[in-house]
Amino acid sequence: MCRPRRRRRHRGPRRLVRGIGVSTDATGDLAAAVRELAALVHGRILDEASAARARRLVAEAAELVAACPPRPRWHEGPDRRARSAALSPFSGSLNVVAPPLTLDRVTLDDATPAIEGRVRLDRLREGPPHSVHGGVLAGLFDEVCGAAQRLTGRPGGVTARLLVRYRRPTPLDTDLRLVAWVADERTRRVHVRGRCEAGGVVTAEAEAVFVRVNTWPASGEAVGGGTATAT
Amino acid sequence: MCRPRRRRRHRGPRRLVRGIGVSTDATGDLAAAVRELAALVHGRILDEASAARARRLVAEAAELVAACPPRPRWHEGPDRRARSAALSPFSGSLNVVAPPLTLDRVTLDDATPAIEGRVRLDRLREGPPHSVHGGVLAGLFDEVCGAAQRLTGRPGGVTARLLVRYRRPTPLDTDLRLVAWVADERTRRVHVRGRCEAGGVVTAEAEAVFVRVNTWPASGEAVGGGTATAT
Repeated sequence: MCRPRRRRRHRGPRRLVRGIGVSTDATGDLAAAVRELAALVHGRILDEASAARARRLVAEAAELVAACPPRPRWHEGPDRRARSAALSPFSGSLNVVAPPLTLDRVTLDDATPAIEGRVRLDRLREGPPHSVHGGVLAGLFDEVCGAAQRLTGRPGGVTARLLVRYRRPTPLDTDLRLVAWVADERTRRVHVRGRCEAGGVVTAEAEAVFVRVNTWPASGEAVGGGTATAT
Repeated sequence: MCRPRRRRRHRGPRRLVRGIGVSTDATGDLAAAVRELAALVHGRILDEASAARARRLVAEAAELVAACPPRPRWHEGPDRRARSAALSPFSGSLNVVAPPLTLDRVTLDDATPAIEGRVRLDRLREGPPHSVHGGVLAGLFDEVCGAAQRLTGRPGGVTARLLVRYRRPTPLDTDLRLVAWVADERTRRVHVRGRCEAGGVVTAEAEAVFVRVNTWPASGEAVGGGTATAT
């Protein structure tokens, strides 16, 4: 359906943004190791002694990390776009709760610019047996659609509306491809559409509306409350 | 708006399902420790030496856990409901990528039975500045609505459709309350509605449709692909 660009691996960020406090190889490797531990905790029946010993090791690691200086939030100070990419709850390689999803710009066969997300999910994200949890898929759609709104070339906005139609099960342990593109653009609203494919079969479709806001939502004045934007 | 039942703490499961391979106090404490480490990795700028040392400690913990016997997936064998609750990607205390959300049955002021979800999210789930990522909120809605469909007293189904309307920012570091109730029930389809409140203010609303399927989605025959059900 499209010509994907070279796909980035995401096990650890490869000196993506050196020297600006976003990530290092070693931190990416640590995040990847914590992800692996999370999967093991989910997948093993621990005796109390093993669990307690593992917890002490993790607490020791946490002490080491806690002694390091604080990292700004994604939107604090310069380099916000790089931090946004590294820290996102869906695509951030330094965010352990992110799978993470990779995001790339692509061009669909009909020449439509689009964002392509690639991800492979395991039992940590299981909903129906051997299938991706519907809520996880909704979240991934918000992330990919949120990236697609910036294809307009203008600053992005927050999610005002997200609709997901689940057509068939989305399998675990399978390479998934999510694509999203701008369907319509108004002054302040951007309509985005997307789909998820597994093995070339569409498993779900999404429609999202993003609204550009003048003030950041934290001010309490803005309408909408969804996707982050790194403008 | 309703009379909430006693709220469960979720830092570690308190001997919820002893002896059936679902959880122990020690495993819950380990999962909680891994969650804390994940937050620290997100929030600190690590020097390479500290990151490498922390990674070795985490790898040592992972070796201990990997030596333990495998835990069945939530739907394998007996005790599926207990395992589903412990392992869910949104409400499972043993699932590190879950916040986790607590779920309780409540009765709304108009006597409608409902499911109440309680959760407090931090920067790991940040979208717009100081606000919950729209995709995270969509996922939490799927989980709470998926639990609410079982208020019909019949087996649950998979998500066929999820719509979220974001009314205003949903704040981080604030107790959130999600409620969901059955709006309509047909033979195979259950319509659920829900809302999210922060400090008594509605920040988002959801509509979901669940479809009961005769075969598990993994068979490739069923329509829908969302929420897990522990029937």
